[in-house]
Amino acid sequence: MKKFGFGVDIGGTTCKIGLFETTGQIVEKWEIPTDTREGGKNILPDVAASLQGKMRERSISKEDVEGIGIGIPGPVQTDGSVPVCVNLGWKNVHVPAEMEALMPGIEVRAGNDANVAALGEMWQGGGKGCKNMVMVTLGTGVGGGIIVDEKIVAGSHGAGGEIGHITVNPHETVPCNCGRNGCLEQYCSATGITRLAKERLALEHGETLLDKEEVSAKAVFDAYKQQDKTAEEIVEKFAGILGRGLSNIACVADPEVFVIGGGVSKAGEILLEAVQRYFKKAAFPSCVDTRFALASLGNDAGMYGCVKLILK
Amino acid sequence: MKKFGFGVDIGGTTCKIGLFETTGQIVEKWEIPTDTREGGKNILPDVAASLQGKMRERSISKEDVEGIGIGIPGPVQTDGSVPVCVNLGWKNVHVPAEMEALMPGIEVRAGNDANVAALGEMWQGGGKGCKNMVMVTLGTGVGGGIIVDEKIVAGSHGAGGEIGHITVNPHETVPCNCGRNGCLEQYCSATGITRLAKERLALEHGETLLDKEEVSAKAVFDAYKQQDKTAEEIVEKFAGILGRGLSNIACVADPEVFVIGGGVSKAGEILLEAVQRYFKKAAFPSCVDTRFALASLGNDAGMYGCVKLILK
Repeated sequence: MKKFGFGVDIGGTTCKIGLFETTGQIVEKWEIPTDTREGGKNILPDVAASLQGKMRERSISKEDVEGIGIGIPGPVQTDGSVPVCVNLGWKNVHVPAEMEALMPGIEVRAGNDANVAALGEMWQGGGKGCKNMVMVTLGTGVGGGIIVDEKIVAGSHGAGGEIGHITVNPHETVPCNCGRNGCLEQYCSATGITRLAKERLALEHGETLLDKEEVSAKAVFDAYKQQDKTAEEIVEKFAGILGRGLSNIACVADPEVFVIGGGVSKAGEILLEAVQRYFKKAAFPSCVDTRFALASLGNDAGMYGCVKLILK
Repeated sequence: MKKFGFGVDIGGTTCKIGLFETTGQIVEKWEIPTDTREGGKNILPDVAASLQGKMRERSISKEDVEGIGIGIPGPVQTDGSVPVCVNLGWKNVHVPAEMEALMPGIEVRAGNDANVAALGEMWQGGGKGCKNMVMVTLGTGVGGGIIVDEKIVAGSHGAGGEIGHITVNPHETVPCNCGRNGCLEQYCSATGITRLAKERLALEHGETLLDKEEVSAKAVFDAYKQQDKTAEEIVEKFAGILGRGLSNIACVADPEVFVIGGGVSKAGEILLEAVQRYFKKAAFPSCVDTRFALASLGNDAGMYGCVKLILK
């Protein structure tokens, strides 16, 4: 096996690049700006120049490189082509073909950024040692990634792992960003938790550490850690919705572990415990012991997953 | 590639056996009784004797046989071993190892019967031409099978594709067979549809073709085809629950096609149309055009899938 691999996680403002040993050890990481001008035509050439510079600097030949994995903030086809990527200004970019033309002799693969982040967590993060995993990213929205037998389930329309848009409440009247109503993301994202908190605080007449005007998901979990009763109610509601939602996912994909990441997951073990408690109550009998773990690679997960993408 | 493969779908009373060309063409099928006495110890030897007899009869040598695929009515581990199978009386049977000892020189693989039936429908049935499929079996219960990239998602606890046990109504007070409440199967199986019908008929004061005492899923769909208003209400309720349930599965596995099989699916296109209509309303935008198809292999699906299991 060749010794090195590059992971390139392209975001709307910066590209996070990592040089890895194929064993999973990170050697060095750095960032370059993402130039989205002119339909993003400079993005891949800029990345290629950066990788070539690094190879010269460290005297790494192309024979030493197993490949380059690239994460894209949008839908990616199975062959690595990108029909449209609004965040990068791209239309019809075949990432492997264009990148291989810039870096002859090195294999290139591409995947969606949320999916490669899940793969990264499976390989070297919270799901290390597992082959079947569901990643749940609780950020501004709720994202996900389904890994079956070490491979991403991208889906036939790029909607594999779009678990934030599972309908958990068909009676919801407030619309989700996707245009539908009652999606998991409306209750379990940072924004969703804030909304749950505001609704609860509007009814509050007792004492609470939470401030009606400046409540946030973080404030809720901070108050929860101090046993604030109102925060407890909000967290129980959040955990009930998420735990039950994940129990339904277990009846489809039946993973070994749910790995919880994203900004909200910084609340830590106390969040896992609450969600897992509701999951156990709701789960199909054979799945009650499914493990829960926190994501551990933070913003580097995508880079890791990009490298895993190119390993055979 | 070798020319032939055997598919053996072991049931609690009979084993359905098929000799196939590896192209997917069935050459001959027959059945032998399943002998569940003495912990089912004769089952695999009986199957082996039947296969050897057929090979002699048709002058097929082991060099002509790609392999033997075996479907088991219970949970099967990834390596083909079966910890417990109540239907067969088995405890700790390593199907490939035991069968290969009986049929030296021929490769053997085993899978769960519902999962191999899904694989069969993907290979030569309603999902032909697809690599990503969700099979929905509406029988006495509701079963399923998730196929990703032509492979079964068996799950870490054998619960992959247990879609009948997705909770669709947390407020349900009647318990499901699994001990929980509000599972999809409680509304969308033949039994579930009968229950919906009885509940509706208890409130009926007008005219209907349906008989309160002898209603069945088949009677409901027959009356639906004759535009019976009461049957329409029942079918709309069933289709709404199933369509919304499948829209949530699409946010996880995002298949190209949902293939609907099992006894209830004999209602035909009219059932597909109703379910798909609710699916489209509920689905995540990128999935609204997911195809729906009827299963087409009937009880032979398992045999087909067993053969597909052994093809590289």
